[in-house]
Amino acid sequence: MSTAASETAALSFDELADLLERIFVRHGVSPENARILAANCAGCERDGSHSHGIFRIPGYVSSLASGWVDGKAVPVVEDTGGAFIRVDAQSGFTQPAFFAARDLLVERTRQHGIGLLAIRRSHHFSALWPDVEPFADEGLVALSFVNSMTCVVPFGGKKPLYGTNPIAFAAPRKDEPPFVFDLATSAIANGDVQIAAREGRLLPEGMGVDSDGKPTRDPKVILNGGALLAFGGHKGSTIALMVEILGAALTGGYFSGEFDWSDFKGAQTPKTGQLFIVIDPERGGNGVFRERVSEICELTREAGQERLPGDRRLVIREKSLRDGIAISAADHQMLLSKLA
Amino acid sequence: MSTAASETAALSFDELADLLERIFVRHGVSPENARILAANCAGCERDGSHSHGIFRIPGYVSSLASGWVDGKAVPVVEDTGGAFIRVDAQSGFTQPAFFAARDLLVERTRQHGIGLLAIRRSHHFSALWPDVEPFADEGLVALSFVNSMTCVVPFGGKKPLYGTNPIAFAAPRKDEPPFVFDLATSAIANGDVQIAAREGRLLPEGMGVDSDGKPTRDPKVILNGGALLAFGGHKGSTIALMVEILGAALTGGYFSGEFDWSDFKGAQTPKTGQLFIVIDPERGGNGVFRERVSEICELTREAGQERLPGDRRLVIREKSLRDGIAISAADHQMLLSKLA
Repeated sequence: MSTAASETAALSFDELADLLERIFVRHGVSPENARILAANCAGCERDGSHSHGIFRIPGYVSSLASGWVDGKAVPVVEDTGGAFIRVDAQSGFTQPAFFAARDLLVERTRQHGIGLLAIRRSHHFSALWPDVEPFADEGLVALSFVNSMTCVVPFGGKKPLYGTNPIAFAAPRKDEPPFVFDLATSAIANGDVQIAAREGRLLPEGMGVDSDGKPTRDPKVILNGGALLAFGGHKGSTIALMVEILGAALTGGYFSGEFDWSDFKGAQTPKTGQLFIVIDPERGGNGVFRERVSEICELTREAGQERLPGDRRLVIREKSLRDGIAISAADHQMLLSKLA
Repeated sequence: MSTAASETAALSFDELADLLERIFVRHGVSPENARILAANCAGCERDGSHSHGIFRIPGYVSSLASGWVDGKAVPVVEDTGGAFIRVDAQSGFTQPAFFAARDLLVERTRQHGIGLLAIRRSHHFSALWPDVEPFADEGLVALSFVNSMTCVVPFGGKKPLYGTNPIAFAAPRKDEPPFVFDLATSAIANGDVQIAAREGRLLPEGMGVDSDGKPTRDPKVILNGGALLAFGGHKGSTIALMVEILGAALTGGYFSGEFDWSDFKGAQTPKTGQLFIVIDPERGGNGVFRERVSEICELTREAGQERLPGDRRLVIREKSLRDGIAISAADHQMLLSKLA
């Protein structure tokens, strides 16, 4: 570990992952689960997904302490004998449940051309892109849907019902990293509303409503009994509803407004479900699938879109791998305090 | 056929489908393809999808006359031996290609839990919901993606690249018709821009750009060298890009801006590709999948969303089946003229 400035530490990926792993173990996570969660969280921090990086550690610790999520959960894989695989996460974090079935999912996808993984009773507390990107590194196409916790009002409605319900997608490209996106179906992240409220800023239009379902730009009104809107009006709201169906109804998980953590003070992790659809493009793309994905991305740039989804992440990743992952002194102190 | 008013004819579904079938055959479509296209088009008209109903007949006829689309095409199904099925539509309409593989797709989906159908060299000129709804009638979940013809500018860009690139989804419900949606990833339909231009109306904000990529509300500016925007800003644009990848790169079809119909005067049908993903929810939903879909739809209504996707269609369908499909005298005349 080298110190880039008196206020900032630059950790290598392994150093950060090792520190996070020890924190998870210290707070009741089994060593195998801790390794998975630490790599995931360090990867978010490395790639500039700060809202899902070490920023989340207090939430992980608090949720574990509450008993709401089981850090030692041993996921149970149910092989339905085809291309449809299920995992009961046993009320643990999603990522260990995912890794318990991942190899089987890849095997079945290559065997049948398409595969599905349905995870339930799972707590997803991270970004979604780390789940899909590695499939594309192996030449596969992946889609994932995860519902979360109630904060989004259906279009034209008054009461929040859906979660931020992200969708992620990854597809391999030719001679460059995969095309990957991870987008919340809410118009804005909850965290960004909180920041605006703290700073006394108004939000752009179309982000949220008050408790009567009326549009408001005031973040405090949204946070006090109001709700977020889905992105893109009725269409985004419809996609958020689809994520509830795919992430929860189809997996056997809870809807975003359904789980009850009232007896678990400090719990922050939504207990829902997650769906993966993975496709082997070699069966359909006339042997030039990667080239074609690169081509449509290049055409998008030529049409004038300067930054494609994932571009920024790849730049930050490269910098982090070269210079280390920059951690402020305050954050480093926070992490070390969690080992105490 | 009964006449509801001097100006309007009320045709039964069979009467309308029969008339449309004769029109298709008259213009060079094979009898088996004509039956499929006529049922599809009559179904759109019956359900109030007027922009994809008999309104499209002149476009069908003109495209057939141009030689751009082959009404007699015999689709070639390629069974990759698993859950991934391909069809070469042989430059015919998509729907006959779809029906050529549909039974096999359902069989494989039930066998493996999930199935995929990739159609290429196909002309989709109708709505997308008729393709997915029948799967849900059989208890399956279906997703479909089809790219179309260049009219949408990537987010922040200047030049149009993507098509209106719709996504459709269907899931069975308990004791009620399936939940079905069909949404274009463009902010507005091309036809609605044309209508606004004709009526001299400005559009709402966020629908389109001028030839420099600058936002405009003037429909004439959009139509003269400008472009439509994707719905929902950068997120909708990202989803439109995904539809290009799934609908074209993965199927082996053309991108929306790629096919060349310059030698086919009168051609109106985009020649691209279409992807279906079909899932057997019985493997994952704890035996109560239909109930759960009904439940989240009901919760959406309770949260204050009065109309769910598909509600209007079902009301119009019921009325059409009871009272006949209302066809104006002018439209009826237009249809009869196509038999001449």
